[in-house]
Amino acid sequence: MEKRFEISLLFDLYGELLTEKQKDIMDLYFNNDLSLSEIAEINNTSRQATHDTIKTCEKVLLVYEEKLKLLNKNHELKETLKNIVLELDDLQINIKDEKMNKIICDIKTQISDNI
Amino acid sequence: MEKRFEISLLFDLYGELLTEKQKDIMDLYFNNDLSLSEIAEINNTSRQATHDTIKTCEKVLLVYEEKLKLLNKNHELKETLKNIVLELDDLQINIKDEKMNKIICDIKTQISDNI
Repeated sequence: MEKRFEISLLFDLYGELLTEKQKDIMDLYFNNDLSLSEIAEINNTSRQATHDTIKTCEKVLLVYEEKLKLLNKNHELKETLKNIVLELDDLQINIKDEKMNKIICDIKTQISDNI
Repeated sequence: MEKRFEISLLFDLYGELLTEKQKDIMDLYFNNDLSLSEIAEINNTSRQATHDTIKTCEKVLLVYEEKLKLLNKNHELKETLKNIVLELDDLQINIKDEKMNKIICDIKTQISDNI
């Protein structure tokens, strides 16, 4: 997985464990795609300080993932759920009954909400 | 939810974020059902110190839940998955085809592994 994408996913999972200041900077960098210089200007600080904060946060997030493995577990669950949707698609091909088809559609919707 | 049961679930979710010492004491208390005095004896410390450690850990675990809400999210997901299994049961009643029944059984197994 590309590093920046991974950190962005970890920020979604563990961001609440960072300080407000750290969260703000990470949000501007990863979610709003601002440059280090732009974030530094907003916070009235240096580009280097902003860079350091982001690197610190990245390390913190990686430690949380090492301990809780939420990204890993979520990925496995999502793969299982995607597989179930495929199996339901297979099933649906052979089912002509409207009521039964509706049940399968409903199950697929419930699963898709969690993927 | 009963407090002791809730803490035990939170310990399963966030236990890895505690120190080794804290984890050991929580494990003896919540998973092995030892008394405070028994744990104190094992650790060569007082009953009061053991009690204080457990109370501190409980507070820490509750703060993690307040921030990450994993217990809450897991509960919601499990309810959704249980509901899907019930819908699959309904579906199965009306399906006579062996191959299709096998697919549903397989889906139910995959879901049950995550409940």
